[in-house]
Amino acid sequence: MIDSASYPRLSRIKTPDDLRMFDESELGAIAGELRAYLIESVGKSGGHFAAGLGVIELTVALHYLYDTPVDQLVWDVGHQTYPHKILTGRRDSIHTVKQKDGVAPFPKREESQFDTFGVGHSSTSISAALGMAIARQNQGDDRKVIAVIGDGAMTAGMAFEALAHAGGMDDEPNVLVILNDNNMSISEAVGGLTKMLGRATASRTLNALRESGKKILGDKRHSPPARFVKRWEEQWKGMFVPSTAFEQMGFHYTGPIDGHDLPLLVSTLKHLKDAKGPHLLHIMTTKGKGYEPAEDDQIGYHAVGPFDPSKGLPEKGAPKKPTYTDIFGDWLCDAAAADPQLLAITPAMREGSGLVRFSKEYPERYFDVAIAEQHAVTLAAGMATQGAKPVVAIYSTFLQRAYDQLVHDVATQDLDVLFAIDRAGVVGPDGATHAGNLDLSYLRCVPNMVVMAPGDEAECRQMLSTGLQYKGPAAVRYPRGTGPGAAVGKDLSTLEIGKAQLRVQGSRLAILAFGAAVPAAEQVGRELGLSVVNMRFIKPLDKAMLLELARTHDGFITVEDNVVAGGAGSGVSELLNAEAVVMPMLHLGLPDSYQHHASREDLLAEAGIDAAGIRAAILERWPKLQDSAAPLSAAS
Amino acid sequence: MIDSASYPRLSRIKTPDDLRMFDESELGAIAGELRAYLIESVGKSGGHFAAGLGVIELTVALHYLYDTPVDQLVWDVGHQTYPHKILTGRRDSIHTVKQKDGVAPFPKREESQFDTFGVGHSSTSISAALGMAIARQNQGDDRKVIAVIGDGAMTAGMAFEALAHAGGMDDEPNVLVILNDNNMSISEAVGGLTKMLGRATASRTLNALRESGKKILGDKRHSPPARFVKRWEEQWKGMFVPSTAFEQMGFHYTGPIDGHDLPLLVSTLKHLKDAKGPHLLHIMTTKGKGYEPAEDDQIGYHAVGPFDPSKGLPEKGAPKKPTYTDIFGDWLCDAAAADPQLLAITPAMREGSGLVRFSKEYPERYFDVAIAEQHAVTLAAGMATQGAKPVVAIYSTFLQRAYDQLVHDVATQDLDVLFAIDRAGVVGPDGATHAGNLDLSYLRCVPNMVVMAPGDEAECRQMLSTGLQYKGPAAVRYPRGTGPGAAVGKDLSTLEIGKAQLRVQGSRLAILAFGAAVPAAEQVGRELGLSVVNMRFIKPLDKAMLLELARTHDGFITVEDNVVAGGAGSGVSELLNAEAVVMPMLHLGLPDSYQHHASREDLLAEAGIDAAGIRAAILERWPKLQDSAAPLSAAS
Repeated sequence: MIDSASYPRLSRIKTPDDLRMFDESELGAIAGELRAYLIESVGKSGGHFAAGLGVIELTVALHYLYDTPVDQLVWDVGHQTYPHKILTGRRDSIHTVKQKDGVAPFPKREESQFDTFGVGHSSTSISAALGMAIARQNQGDDRKVIAVIGDGAMTAGMAFEALAHAGGMDDEPNVLVILNDNNMSISEAVGGLTKMLGRATASRTLNALRESGKKILGDKRHSPPARFVKRWEEQWKGMFVPSTAFEQMGFHYTGPIDGHDLPLLVSTLKHLKDAKGPHLLHIMTTKGKGYEPAEDDQIGYHAVGPFDPSKGLPEKGAPKKPTYTDIFGDWLCDAAAADPQLLAITPAMREGSGLVRFSKEYPERYFDVAIAEQHAVTLAAGMATQGAKPVVAIYSTFLQRAYDQLVHDVATQDLDVLFAIDRAGVVGPDGATHAGNLDLSYLRCVPNMVVMAPGDEAECRQMLSTGLQYKGPAAVRYPRGTGPGAAVGKDLSTLEIGKAQLRVQGSRLAILAFGAAVPAAEQVGRELGLSVVNMRFIKPLDKAMLLELARTHDGFITVEDNVVAGGAGSGVSELLNAEAVVMPMLHLGLPDSYQHHASREDLLAEAGIDAAGIRAAILERWPKLQDSAAPLSAAS
Repeated sequence: MIDSASYPRLSRIKTPDDLRMFDESELGAIAGELRAYLIESVGKSGGHFAAGLGVIELTVALHYLYDTPVDQLVWDVGHQTYPHKILTGRRDSIHTVKQKDGVAPFPKREESQFDTFGVGHSSTSISAALGMAIARQNQGDDRKVIAVIGDGAMTAGMAFEALAHAGGMDDEPNVLVILNDNNMSISEAVGGLTKMLGRATASRTLNALRESGKKILGDKRHSPPARFVKRWEEQWKGMFVPSTAFEQMGFHYTGPIDGHDLPLLVSTLKHLKDAKGPHLLHIMTTKGKGYEPAEDDQIGYHAVGPFDPSKGLPEKGAPKKPTYTDIFGDWLCDAAAADPQLLAITPAMREGSGLVRFSKEYPERYFDVAIAEQHAVTLAAGMATQGAKPVVAIYSTFLQRAYDQLVHDVATQDLDVLFAIDRAGVVGPDGATHAGNLDLSYLRCVPNMVVMAPGDEAECRQMLSTGLQYKGPAAVRYPRGTGPGAAVGKDLSTLEIGKAQLRVQGSRLAILAFGAAVPAAEQVGRELGLSVVNMRFIKPLDKAMLLELARTHDGFITVEDNVVAGGAGSGVSELLNAEAVVMPMLHLGLPDSYQHHASREDLLAEAGIDAAGIRAAILERWPKLQDSAAPLSAAS
């Protein structure tokens, strides 16, 4: 329960209706309480932090002025929505964020009617808001639609597509896009758009001005002598401000204004609220605003574990077991040292994908293309045509956004691109929007692809080397976090393409395990006396080994951290069917439904692909297995 | 063989080396011959027409000035590359374009070293060219890279992503982007970018000027009095020209210039050839240029069948059997009349997707979002949140570009969007880049999706009604061209979700046919006395019927016009494996490789999913089938 002594106003606000009872003059104090409460609660729970601090004032202003949830507020990406969640019914549960059965880390329609559009990937908000506005206009409903999008998210093509559509419509849609410009995305900002937006803060004069932005651009009552303002405004608009581009696209542009100046925000939004047509309001904010350590280290404070706000983030402890991300990052540097043709590409995920070291050691061969997955993949295709060895480091869930580029630009032309796919399979606390549950299905159907999944860290390194050496499109997909802890070498040895590894020679049944499922499968196989294969390759499969195992076993169990539909196990069935081998088969994998946020371990258990689940499923199908003498039959 | 009397210069040009032997003063005559030859040969062969006529001068100028294929010329989309193909070794075979074993309709790396980047989908050229330029710079190679992209293709997000990256790089890449602005894409141009580009031709004065563009902007030797030019230029640049946006993104901008003025093109390109950093040259051209009927009807002449150039396109004959596209178009209008919440979206494929009638009858409910598949799908998701019934009309191959939006924005939220997927399965003469071979695999793995494929036209209509009624994401995927010719009703009746249709009650084996494969499967089943099921639903499958058939048959054959990997047949295996039913199974479908361009019939036969192929495959697996008394066994 919230402490009403520390939070005299916030403790009276359960929903925006309560907020709207306050006098406008109290909004500043409310924002202060909201900021303090956010710091306190994220300190306890961990979670996304700096982004929320940057939109405290905006969140208060929007819910105060607009009739949410009737008016539709669409947050882009969604990691900035803890303040929104606190003001919309989730104040007392925000400390459960990201936990199983707790508050979702991103807006989620099932969770609240104030969460108008579920999200997790960036740059969807303008499209969604425009769709809402059009549908409402078709229904004769003039309630408002607002999209809030960061400058980082603006770099993605789909945001541009949406702006172009909204700005170009003859029947102008009533939609307000708020560009929350904090001059950085998750990684360091890059790209032409960023350069363009960057001009708004480029000059020292302008930085000084930013602090007193309202005096120049906002409330005219407080403006300095008119002529100076006018000249200054022209200068600003012409030289530093991206207004022209937005205006050329058909948007009415307002800004930039200081997004932490609540009175200015409120007065500006009041004006825009009833404006017709597509509007863009450009606000400048600081990630981490109001918590100095976060302002100074915005990347470090993007997402945090629990910490004591009075002390800041704890020192990093002794080096833990390396994550798969670390394995990739080290391999990349070693491989780059050995091959000057290696070039690495990330769509704005330098830290998350383990590219920090590479970006420092090989800056001229490192390409952060901003949030632009489509471009990232076709850029790699272009590089490959010249004999370069591009490595695209990307999360499984974000590769979905470059699917056509993978198919049409890379695989159709059999180009030599390596995809290093992180966060494959079960991802965990970030929820369904970040799940990497589909990649084996959507990659396996693509001709020319080689698809690998490592059973441990050492194999991950070998697979990366294998994919780099292979002359064609290859993907190595590995899970979030750490693996079983295999010692990782420093060499660049490779694996034979399409060769599986027999881990345990058992009898009766064979467990065919893919990637992250290998350790649990091995444990169960040893317990039950079954054969266990680390399949290594999803495509091509080890046909010789599968046919040999089929001759010597009574059934197969496939285990993978991908949906069963079209997954790796399904490929085993296809191969046996093509060879006219009829074989009892059990496919274990992720469910045909979206998994909610929870720990990776919880979700693996829920899906039944941890050791306990695998064991139970096998014994359910083959109950006679416990009687070692009884013959097995298909339907038990 | 080319007639040297009619083509005195072109007949001496086999490759660009030959072209470069001519004096610059002869280029105009060469362009004239090239245009005439293109008209003559496409008249004989059919193919893409108007786009090629629009870039005759550009093609001549580029190959004359640049050292192709060492310098890399990247054509966007590729339907404008017949003139390029004629000048680069394929002059004498261009009349075989689109035919089996003939010249490919788009650039294709396997076909020619002058085709630097295979293509078919739009908007990839800047990414590819930038990748080439970066790889070359890393190799210390300063040879040139040029991308040619149309204004229509510029609307896609990935083109924007590429511009932003190229313009924002600190180490400026040497890449020339030529914006071929013909003020239209395939459908009528829409969108904010188009509006922005459109200003260059918006005013009457400017249209007049366009004819004499060189006088103002080009060759200064012929310029009118300097002061007027300067004023005019400022006006032009500030008011009409999108230079600012490109320059803000970091590109050096030149233009617009008349792209049919060959001397101007040559002099401008000479200047740009050795310029450093990212450059954008904006040229204005006319689709169909030099063939008046095509200039007047650019959409009609976009792609044509064989015709007599002296007479123009033949009159449309008596109405043929309706295509699946027609079935969709009519259904859409009827469904819209019945449901005011229906809204229809197309990413710039009004004609191809059968939306012309709808766009006229329901203009306020029709949304052509330009080439912007990602936005199209999330726009639909936004509409669905408001209770609207969006229908996204899209080609199978282009839906790949909105895969993340389908997964993350539509399916994860279980939103009520209907995907009407045209050109699914084997597409034919447009080649591998347009194939719809993967959709069942990449859709089936997505939770919450209902996926349907009709066996005939009447069922297509019923499935569309079914998908519209269904409260969640649904897809109906249907092939290019005509079906078996079933009579189509005018009602909006629906099918029961997940119910298959037993077409033939036979014995021993059951053929489970999906979508376009149904007629051939039915024919074979009747011949061989087998049961035949029109499965109708890829997801969910008709479990009850499958289990019943499994009890009463000795084996299943699945047939589909999708790759086998992860396809519909694979889903049948998964279901039986989940039910512990062990069953001999043969999966027939498209191969795990890219099919070249040829007729649909040829490609279906090549894949073995026409009647002859299905019959042969069944008898190969079950040779004893011809002896009606012999029992069947799995491995024959």
